[in-house]
Amino acid sequence: MIRVGVIGYGYWGPNLARNFSKNENCQLAAIADLDPEKLAKASRLYPGAQAIGSIEELLGREDIDAVAIATPLATHYPIAKQALESGKHVLVEKPLAASSRQCQELISIAESKGLALMVDHTFIYTGAVRKLKELAESGELGEVYYYDSVRVNLGLFQNDTNVLWDLATHDFSIMDFLVDKKPVRVTAVGSTPVRNHSWSMESLAYVNVEFEDGNLAHFHVNWLSPVKVRRTLIGGSRKMVIYDPLELDNEIKIYDKGVEFKDDQEQRYKALVQYRTGDMRAPKIDQSEALERVCGHFLECIESGQAAQTDGPAGLRVVQLLEAAQRSMDERRTVEVESAHSAVASGLT
Amino acid sequence: MIRVGVIGYGYWGPNLARNFSKNENCQLAAIADLDPEKLAKASRLYPGAQAIGSIEELLGREDIDAVAIATPLATHYPIAKQALESGKHVLVEKPLAASSRQCQELISIAESKGLALMVDHTFIYTGAVRKLKELAESGELGEVYYYDSVRVNLGLFQNDTNVLWDLATHDFSIMDFLVDKKPVRVTAVGSTPVRNHSWSMESLAYVNVEFEDGNLAHFHVNWLSPVKVRRTLIGGSRKMVIYDPLELDNEIKIYDKGVEFKDDQEQRYKALVQYRTGDMRAPKIDQSEALERVCGHFLECIESGQAAQTDGPAGLRVVQLLEAAQRSMDERRTVEVESAHSAVASGLT
Amino acid sequence: MIRVGVIGYGYWGPNLARNFSKNENCQLAAIADLDPEKLAKASRLYPGAQAIGSIEELLGREDIDAVAIATPLATHYPIAKQALESGKHVLVEKPLAASSRQCQELISIAESKGLALMVDHTFIYTGAVRKLKELAESGELGEVYYYDSVRVNLGLFQNDTNVLWDLATHDFSIMDFLVDKKPVRVTAVGSTPVRNHSWSMESLAYVNVEFEDGNLAHFHVNWLSPVKVRRTLIGGSRKMVIYDPLELDNEIKIYDKGVEFKDDQEQRYKALVQYRTGDMRAPKIDQSEALERVCGHFLECIESGQAAQTDGPAGLRVVQLLEAAQRSMDERRTVEVESAHSAVASGLT
Amino acid sequence: MIRVGVIGYGYWGPNLARNFSKNENCQLAAIADLDPEKLAKASRLYPGAQAIGSIEELLGREDIDAVAIATPLATHYPIAKQALESGKHVLVEKPLAASSRQCQELISIAESKGLALMVDHTFIYTGAVRKLKELAESGELGEVYYYDSVRVNLGLFQNDTNVLWDLATHDFSIMDFLVDKKPVRVTAVGSTPVRNHSWSMESLAYVNVEFEDGNLAHFHVNWLSPVKVRRTLIGGSRKMVIYDPLELDNEIKIYDKGVEFKDDQEQRYKALVQYRTGDMRAPKIDQSEALERVCGHFLECIESGQAAQTDGPAGLRVVQLLEAAQRSMDERRTVEVESAHSAVASGLT
Repeated sequence: MIRVGVIGYGYWGPNLARNFSKNENCQLAAIADLDPEKLAKASRLYPGAQAIGSIEELLGREDIDAVAIATPLATHYPIAKQALESGKHVLVEKPLAASSRQCQELISIAESKGLALMVDHTFIYTGAVRKLKELAESGELGEVYYYDSVRVNLGLFQNDTNVLWDLATHDFSIMDFLVDKKPVRVTAVGSTPVRNHSWSMESLAYVNVEFEDGNLAHFHVNWLSPVKVRRTLIGGSRKMVIYDPLELDNEIKIYDKGVEFKDDQEQRYKALVQYRTGDMRAPKIDQSEALERVCGHFLECIESGQAAQTDGPAGLRVVQLLEAAQRSMDERRTVEVESAHSAVASGLT
Repeated sequence: MIRVGVIGYGYWGPNLARNFSKNENCQLAAIADLDPEKLAKASRLYPGAQAIGSIEELLGREDIDAVAIATPLATHYPIAKQALESGKHVLVEKPLAASSRQCQELISIAESKGLALMVDHTFIYTGAVRKLKELAESGELGEVYYYDSVRVNLGLFQNDTNVLWDLATHDFSIMDFLVDKKPVRVTAVGSTPVRNHSWSMESLAYVNVEFEDGNLAHFHVNWLSPVKVRRTLIGGSRKMVIYDPLELDNEIKIYDKGVEFKDDQEQRYKALVQYRTGDMRAPKIDQSEALERVCGHFLECIESGQAAQTDGPAGLRVVQLLEAAQRSMDERRTVEVESAHSAVASGLT
Repeated sequence: MIRVGVIGYGYWGPNLARNFSKNENCQLAAIADLDPEKLAKASRLYPGAQAIGSIEELLGREDIDAVAIATPLATHYPIAKQALESGKHVLVEKPLAASSRQCQELISIAESKGLALMVDHTFIYTGAVRKLKELAESGELGEVYYYDSVRVNLGLFQNDTNVLWDLATHDFSIMDFLVDKKPVRVTAVGSTPVRNHSWSMESLAYVNVEFEDGNLAHFHVNWLSPVKVRRTLIGGSRKMVIYDPLELDNEIKIYDKGVEFKDDQEQRYKALVQYRTGDMRAPKIDQSEALERVCGHFLECIESGQAAQTDGPAGLRVVQLLEAAQRSMDERRTVEVESAHSAVASGLT
Repeated sequence: MIRVGVIGYGYWGPNLARNFSKNENCQLAAIADLDPEKLAKASRLYPGAQAIGSIEELLGREDIDAVAIATPLATHYPIAKQALESGKHVLVEKPLAASSRQCQELISIAESKGLALMVDHTFIYTGAVRKLKELAESGELGEVYYYDSVRVNLGLFQNDTNVLWDLATHDFSIMDFLVDKKPVRVTAVGSTPVRNHSWSMESLAYVNVEFEDGNLAHFHVNWLSPVKVRRTLIGGSRKMVIYDPLELDNEIKIYDKGVEFKDDQEQRYKALVQYRTGDMRAPKIDQSEALERVCGHFLECIESGQAAQTDGPAGLRVVQLLEAAQRSMDERRTVEVESAHSAVASGLT
């Protein structure tokens, strides 16, 4: 029985605690938070887990085999590092860490210690994204012409991070999972219309990713939208897809639509291309909770010793894209994406 | 009675002919097209107008006071120039011409001859955009934090122009009309997933405009989308707006939503900002045909000698933005926007 | 070349004229209307057709082979009767006539004279309803459990008819075409909230049809709705369907959903049934204009001598349902539906 | 401190327990259920409440002041009766009881004992229905022309009740709360397409209510719909409303639309009425949990001795409408609605 500790009981921690608590392959052994009020709440709900006011103390406990870290971004690296060094398997909230350098170091420690290191890219474990993966791998979509996501809503402004590191992390992780092309260049712009003397972070941003074949991915992330939108368009050469997790019964719509050049030389002077329009299909999507799978998969990886689907290198690739986008915004120029694999390699030497 | 000739009877020309034909302040005197089939069709519908197979011939007719030009983009400049030089008032399909240099020359000729020069930025004459203008001018929106438009659909691919010059023209003209800020920098990316040996133009593009105050406008234009989307979000400091001409009964939705910093120093450590959420209102929108107003306004400007709302300089400003976006795509870099006013000034000296 | 006359140039007549005018198998020979203004408008658009101010006169012209009647309901019968007696083929706007007695007489005359009699149940000729027919006939839907339609909007109030005879006609004709079950009983209620001293007709009504097997069809028709709704649900034992002609890209959505009793005796005490939920599919729908097919089919039936899909008996069945519903509203009781076939038979003796 | 017991821990009981548990004006003292598994679950979540396997036992406990009953419909009456006779205040799940006779008896006992009797018509306590009440009372809607609700989805089939008693209860209670008119006649039809040898209950029904002034309310309730719909249209003489609790941001839309007779005698011959179309407004709706208010209101009524908004007579009026609808379905005829007040009066003599 794996004994799990949850570190951080703010926005996401309670969800992790709930899912580990109901999983029969582990025991929720401890919960740590610096805020006594939150800790009391955790204690009431999970009397079987020890409520601890110090992260150090939790990490020092020898009966804890694994930890799930749901603390502010800046603390992911030091806590995860200490946890790994204490011999504990680690699941970290997205994004894995605040820099690719930090990610590389965590990967390196986990590898040398033989411990599981996994990042909670939750969307990868949803029924909808798994269905999209099937479509991409089966060839039904054809070549991916573009990948476009709009992820906007009102709030939630955060003290220590901007909209890019908050929302675009989801998009980068889904794109990394679905699109089998190497991103080579990132161009991003952001703005800070809401700011005061002590706080000035991007609350909206547009991120453009160019793949090695010249095709594009694009993300619009925004904390200042009057409505919540979560819509991804994927234009394939064979099929086109709309993925919208807010459309309960039709999360994924697959359109048999496309464009082809006309062969007929006579007709070329009239119309360049012809359009193909067929049926639309909304496949049934598994609606079980993604975070339940995240927790289950983490436990399985601990047992089996195999790499998680969202392992350290996956977390690193996402952080490299975030860094490139941030640098592009800061320096107002297009930025080349560092190769994740070579980076990891060099980071390990 | 102003006598009007329509040049080009392809996609948009029939709409111009229909609207001039039913306007009581003018007479539809002639229609010109090189294609005998189209000309025959025009002739059947408008037996009172002369059907002419040569543009030269129509422009040479002294009984024609004004022309409306609905021909491919590359021909806007030579035809409009010849028309103005023949002493005719000119209405041109959007965009006004293929370069800012051409626009400046047309403006200059029209001014020296005392003729009306107007560009058909149709959306400016819709009830919805006029309502948005009211909202912007009344101060109800507050400061514009961002302007974001998605204009995507399947097709229509064109032989001689890309998606930018086709679709983004609408967005630039609406933004120019509504947002009272100077655009200073444009960053655009595009891609050409559908291409063959003889045709390779951008079929999707993302355009970013930075205003002098650092706020952003952004446009996604795309000929490869499985669904038609026409949605503009305008985030103001007081109100936020969604404008969607496809939502018949709710073209404009005004949200009483916003974000403000908390004053309370105690609370600052908990949550940075507070959200304001009130009623949503969808004002009644005048549904009369915009093109009817375009044609009527053109005739009024001829009568009164006053500048049109979408006059030559308005057409020039839009073309300058298109040029900047095209250059940004071509050269993969952010491009400074030339000042329209100074450009016109220098073009005229 | 069949020579066609259009009688009535108000709301629907112009659409008939336009479609006959562009059909190559006929000539639009004459248009009749009592209103000189409407006649002048027709004359301008169709200079080749004679504009006639008297219906009598048009019916008296020997060079007219067929007429399309688009006049108020009360006049359908006398005009159609005179037309048939003058030897002309007849297409009548829906509903065929104001009573089943009148329908039977028209059927009888047409049959004895060997003339085509067709009613313009336009929806039967749409791509969507034809696709629904395919689904029903192929067995994909299974047994029809219920047929439910909501057809509501603001207006159009009419001088001489109520909402039932205006809107429910569409529903009865589509149901008659799709559902292969005999309707046996009708229960309808209506109300007249908008009325004055000289006008008092139902502006909203609910109509219930019971089939011989006990299953139900139901229609909500309403001129007082703030929004336009056109939504039909068809619950089949195998598949369920939503048909909504206002959803441009998804007129028909086919849901692989259903309910089955559980066999397991153990489980029966816990849950009665189990639900089946699979993919949703929106088949591609032919978008060509239905009225073009109506006019074409009318001409084909004249040529071939075959009965139209919406022939006299189809028009009679719909009027019998309308009469039953009206009687149910008037007498506040459930009304038995007269058998159309036996009724026709007896009408002919 | 009021001590509350929850009876029945199946579908709704857990929600009652959760809300009483977090209310500071009471103590969740006991939970009763016959199923040991459910009881164990309750016990784990609420260690402070006694878990009791016998309803008798809970009702016998003198330290319980009030009970909330969430058991199958058939048991509402005997349990509530025993509770009242044991001197406990009673909150019952909707509908109050299985017959109006039972309701009258419960009202009578509660009154004679001076105990609170309240039925959980949850929707009455939602922000949306309260906003509708404001609109109705302020006169903004004008006279209610019709009230139309569609409440359909796939499932949930129940062992002991049909779709009418399950879903239409909600509609009757909301209508009773909002519409200040006396219902005089009910006409309902239902069907049982899904049935076997041992179970045959209506899974879809249409219910029509006629008010004393001739206007109508109508409900479509259905367990066999492929999609979930919860949409109420209210047509007022001044404004029209759409209420849809599934439209998160726009639960209520108020349309400034209407129809008026034209005064102009000249114009009367052309068009009967004129339409008014103005803005649409979606007021902000309080999103706090309705059941929290239900529980709070129950406790307040116990303290103050005042009648609940959904007191016994309100529960009785709803059950009288359900009975009338059931009788109309069974006997295939229109049924007069018994007057609730006189009925209560006579029930008490």
